[in-house]
Amino acid sequence: MKIILVGASGTMGKHLVKAFENEHEIIKAGSKSGDILVDITSTESIENMFREAGEFDALISTAGPTHVGSWKTLNDQTFRKGVEGKMMGQINLVLIGQHYINSKGSFTLISGALSHDPQLNFANASAANGAIEGFVRAAAIELENGIRINAVSPTVIENSRQYFPYFPGDIPVTMKQLEYGFRKSVFGANTGQIIKPY
Amino acid sequence: MKIILVGASGTMGKHLVKAFENEHEIIKAGSKSGDILVDITSTESIENMFREAGEFDALISTAGPTHVGSWKTLNDQTFRKGVEGKMMGQINLVLIGQHYINSKGSFTLISGALSHDPQLNFANASAANGAIEGFVRAAAIELENGIRINAVSPTVIENSRQYFPYFPGDIPVTMKQLEYGFRKSVFGANTGQIIKPY
Repeated sequence: MKIILVGASGTMGKHLVKAFENEHEIIKAGSKSGDILVDITSTESIENMFREAGEFDALISTAGPTHVGSWKTLNDQTFRKGVEGKMMGQINLVLIGQHYINSKGSFTLISGALSHDPQLNFANASAANGAIEGFVRAAAIELENGIRINAVSPTVIENSRQYFPYFPGDIPVTMKQLEYGFRKSVFGANTGQIIKPY
Repeated sequence: MKIILVGASGTMGKHLVKAFENEHEIIKAGSKSGDILVDITSTESIENMFREAGEFDALISTAGPTHVGSWKTLNDQTFRKGVEGKMMGQINLVLIGQHYINSKGSFTLISGALSHDPQLNFANASAANGAIEGFVRAAAIELENGIRINAVSPTVIENSRQYFPYFPGDIPVTMKQLEYGFRKSVFGANTGQIIKPY
C-alpha cells in the first residue's frame, strides 16, 4: 500500500513510519523535513504535495498545530493557529486529496479527546478537534468510489511527557495503542468513525 | 434580565424575541436590522456591539451562516463561510463578550444535530457545529465569575420548511421545543452542555 504520512517527523509520525515502512511504501511529508515538504496551511502547497506524490492508497495525518496557552491569551488571532492548522489544514488535505487518492483509499486524520474532555489551556484544540470530528462524519457520507475517512482520537500520548502536567488523571495512550488506532482506520473497513485507541 | 440576542431577525431569533420580551429586556442585534447592527465575521463590529449594548446578563446567538451545497462545491474558499460565520463568529462573541458580561451571566450559542448526525450537503455545518460544541465544553471550565456557556443543538426546525427535503426522517424540532432549549441554558444553572431540545 502506498501511504502518504503528513507529520512524519513528529512524535506520532516517527513511530508510525517505523511501524509501517517494512510492509508499505511510506511517503514522508512534513513542514520541515521528509520526502516532500508541505505547509498544510497553504492549499497550493497541499496541491503540490499530491502532484509530487502521485496516486496513493492512504493518507495519514498527524499534523495538528493549535494554540496552547492560558485562556487570557485566547483571541481571534491566536485561535487561528488551530483553525488554519489542525482544522482547515487537515480538512484541505481531504478536500484536495480526494482528487488524487485511489478508489477504496482512506484518509485518517488526527483529533483528540479534548473535543469532549477539555483541559485548561486547550480550548483552541477542543474546537479544532470538534470540527475535525464533525467533518469526518459528514465527509464519510459524501466521499465516493469506496473512499473512507476516520479520525484517531487519543488522550495525551506517552511520548509527549511535556504535556502530562496539563492532563491530570489522563492515562497516557501508549505509542502502540496509538499505532493500533491508525491500523484500524487504514487497514480496516470502517468509515466516519472517531477511533479512540484506549 | 438584560439579554443580547444576536440573529434577532432570523427564524429562531424572531420566535425567541416574542417569547422573552415581556419579561426581559431584549437587545436585538442582527446583520441587517435590529437595535444594533453587527457583523459577527468582524471582531471590530462585535466590539462595537458590546460597547453600545453595555453590561448585560445573557447573550443568545442564533447566528449561524454556513455553506450549504453539494460536496463538489466544497473547497477551502466555500468552507470559510461556516468557519468565519457560525464558528469563529460565535466564538468571538464569547471571547470578546466575556469582558462585558455581568458576573453569573451566560452565553448560549447555536449548534445543530449535524455535528453528530450528518446529512448530504451540510459538511461545512457539521464541522462548524463540532467546533462550537468542543469550544463550549472547553470555555465552560475557563470562564470565571460564575459565567456559564452552553449550546442549543436542534435538528431541522419546524419553521424552516425549505430545509425539510435535506433532512429525511428527522422529526422537526418545534419552535416551542427550541425555545425550551434556550430557556434551559439562559435561566438554568448548567454550563458546558450541548442542549438537545427534543
